[in-house]
Amino acid sequence: MLDSANYFQSRRTVRRFSDREVSPALIESIIARAVKAPTCGNMQLYTVIVTRDEARRKALATAHFNQPAATGAPVLLTICADFNRFTRWCELRGADAGFDNFLSFTSAVADATALTQQIGTIAEMEGLGTCWLGTVTFNAPAISGLLKLPRLTVPVGALAIGWPSEEGEETERLPLKAVMVEEEYPAWSDDEVLALFKSKEEYPANAKYVEENDKDNLAQVFAEVRYPRTMNEPLSETFLDYLRQQGFLK
Amino acid sequence: MLDSANYFQSRRTVRRFSDREVSPALIESIIARAVKAPTCGNMQLYTVIVTRDEARRKALATAHFNQPAATGAPVLLTICADFNRFTRWCELRGADAGFDNFLSFTSAVADATALTQQIGTIAEMEGLGTCWLGTVTFNAPAISGLLKLPRLTVPVGALAIGWPSEEGEETERLPLKAVMVEEEYPAWSDDEVLALFKSKEEYPANAKYVEENDKDNLAQVFAEVRYPRTMNEPLSETFLDYLRQQGFLK
Repeated sequence: MLDSANYFQSRRTVRRFSDREVSPALIESIIARAVKAPTCGNMQLYTVIVTRDEARRKALATAHFNQPAATGAPVLLTICADFNRFTRWCELRGADAGFDNFLSFTSAVADATALTQQIGTIAEMEGLGTCWLGTVTFNAPAISGLLKLPRLTVPVGALAIGWPSEEGEETERLPLKAVMVEEEYPAWSDDEVLALFKSKEEYPANAKYVEENDKDNLAQVFAEVRYPRTMNEPLSETFLDYLRQQGFLK
Repeated sequence: MLDSANYFQSRRTVRRFSDREVSPALIESIIARAVKAPTCGNMQLYTVIVTRDEARRKALATAHFNQPAATGAPVLLTICADFNRFTRWCELRGADAGFDNFLSFTSAVADATALTQQIGTIAEMEGLGTCWLGTVTFNAPAISGLLKLPRLTVPVGALAIGWPSEEGEETERLPLKAVMVEEEYPAWSDDEVLALFKSKEEYPANAKYVEENDKDNLAQVFAEVRYPRTMNEPLSETFLDYLRQQGFLK
């Protein structure tokens, strides 16, 4: 495994993978270690679905907007918030399982998301490359159909995994004072907010990105090109309908 | 830092802490490394609030039902899903920020939860003890008030951190085949579901737990004592109302 002292601060997302096989034993070993991450009341409210089959990978990649990491990875992991297995067990034991509600969904999301992060960390420390596919919630109903997800399960994490064929791009981060604060949420002035984003706006790759998208500034690229309201609002309705269908919302 | 080869599979949650100070520089160094974890579109949709002040820690611990990890830790971290800072930046730059919706909330939850897990991992590899306080969503409005959280922020992760004064209890996990599956969600029979939970039911500490709670079986302890419907359903309504108030749900 990689040296942990240097790994964390230098980690990069990898989106291009070699043809080298990722063995089932390695994936199993990674997940076996990752499940020791914290879980709500030790209920393990998650299920990881491993996709290796080529036709299924192609179908899943489509649901992830055919982003290169999804189309090119030999292994895709979909991590579901899952109260189905636990509820079935409770019902079989004659217990009144009251987990068909939003609070239970949020607990399962925490479990599944923490597990996703832990799997990514361990995989990367083993030398694998990973890319977190945030699109998993954008197209949850399609992914759900492909993976035959039952009631009380919702896909909330997804990782593309493979042996890297690139180093991965270095990405900038906001200054730490933007995201770590003492005692209470700061009452930032407008000028202070702009100052927090100054280095991000000036980062060369971001400045180039603004030009390529023919916008005035980086904020407009994010809010009007990459994540526009016209996409967010319909997808919100789709996701809420899907949560109702899966039994987590009344 | 600890040897990563052994850390992951042997990690334990720690709930009792010594009086030794956790230096601000160490907390800062941990969070500075953790922010390299994946984040949706590199938007960093989170804020970590560090609580050291004794009166505030006591108030926060109350919101966490005064569980020992919360009352005894020298440092509490509350990790918020945060589209407030990003939206303010967009608005100041004249961009149409459409992040007041449920999809944006789920993206911010993924960012904040992955960050929480990464902070926990790095802290533990530095020798600190941590306890994830899942109660953070149970009492989100109270925590929100204490930390003065503005619109488009919601607390979704919380960690109690300190130098350990105990090793932490070993906890069992389900067999791997219960939580890791190939290609699609399995159509488990009732007998198969019961078999997946057999080792959990037979684990000595769990068997003792059933006796202490005067129930017939472990499923009843979870569903009727620890996480009963009568708690989950009202807290779901509270949390949904709070999401509306914070601007993430219409």
